[in-house]
Amino acid sequence: MQLSDPTLKRLTAIYRVLSRLICFEPDIVSLSSTKLGEYIGYPAHTVRKDISYLGEVGNSGKGYGVRELHDFIAQKLGLDTARRAAVVGLGRIGSAILDYGRFSQAGFDVVAGFDSDINLVDSMVSSVPVYPSYDIPEIVQRHAIELAFLAVPAGAAEKSVARLVAGGIKGVVNFSPLIMKHDTIIIRNMDITGELTLLSALITVKHL
Amino acid sequence: MQLSDPTLKRLTAIYRVLSRLICFEPDIVSLSSTKLGEYIGYPAHTVRKDISYLGEVGNSGKGYGVRELHDFIAQKLGLDTARRAAVVGLGRIGSAILDYGRFSQAGFDVVAGFDSDINLVDSMVSSVPVYPSYDIPEIVQRHAIELAFLAVPAGAAEKSVARLVAGGIKGVVNFSPLIMKHDTIIIRNMDITGELTLLSALITVKHL
Repeated sequence: MQLSDPTLKRLTAIYRVLSRLICFEPDIVSLSSTKLGEYIGYPAHTVRKDISYLGEVGNSGKGYGVRELHDFIAQKLGLDTARRAAVVGLGRIGSAILDYGRFSQAGFDVVAGFDSDINLVDSMVSSVPVYPSYDIPEIVQRHAIELAFLAVPAGAAEKSVARLVAGGIKGVVNFSPLIMKHDTIIIRNMDITGELTLLSALITVKHL
Repeated sequence: MQLSDPTLKRLTAIYRVLSRLICFEPDIVSLSSTKLGEYIGYPAHTVRKDISYLGEVGNSGKGYGVRELHDFIAQKLGLDTARRAAVVGLGRIGSAILDYGRFSQAGFDVVAGFDSDINLVDSMVSSVPVYPSYDIPEIVQRHAIELAFLAVPAGAAEKSVARLVAGGIKGVVNFSPLIMKHDTIIIRNMDITGELTLLSALITVKHL
């Protein structure tokens, strides 16, 4: 199956909308492509085209079945596989993510936290085990951790990624301010400031 | 200027890439559309087309000038305007954002935090003033706050947005698990779990 990255992003966004509807608005059992498009910010025809790349799924006059489309996307994109995750960098953002607690509903187990500050590691109170950063390769490999959140300063980002890769990590959500790319693993560069920037642009363009 | 939301998102992403290059990699003074596209995950022709919607900007054989394109996008999208922001909900994620400290470089001033727990508000140590949630309309209006981060539980999300709107807020970055839309303001629904989901999908599709 060949899917472009933008298509994959939209399909995942649709899947997450459906997950949250199932959880918070169980009365909504079907949804039109127009409505789905409104949720993710794309036109209905883009939604229909993206879904069609995955194969045939029921679409009655009322639209897609919420549960049916959710399970269909999960199966096609391997989202029904549980995966283990870690958090590297246990400052304000990292420790908040470590104790976030809502990942398990979506099939993710956060099983380790890491920080280069040994005193912090020794004194930290968390339901998740925490380790010094030099243990990253060993712990990641031993627990078959596939995903990591990176919440370290810019100067520590590349070394942290190298350690994660040495342990066999497959994907990283990067909250550090450094934009990173990697040849063999996937890095998603997050940008909290960028969200304010996008709101500013939308406010300007829409004359709010 | 009529720009679609996807174009605006890409232009903002390009702007943020340029901002971070200026900050962290000052040696890079020009960048091809191919390279820019790699950073934001879109093909070069999409990048060139998006930029062309804003008007004429220099593109030598070596590509766009980093500083020139940065300032061009900023001016066209109103990103050179300083804006005030607030944080609603001062749990782990909210208080981490309140003290994040890196927004000011990008022209955003976080000037207030709010929580419904009066004891928390009274005892909280932060460089930013914090207030009880019922003060949201008054404080937002008094300080001309245009943007807000929402980091409250699902059950408190709609009431918080109503208070923000009463104060004249223009845009909200929503970290609550509830997906929200609004008729008169812009709401960006964030989804930290969704980032793990997208990594999972990418790992599956790319057979990592």
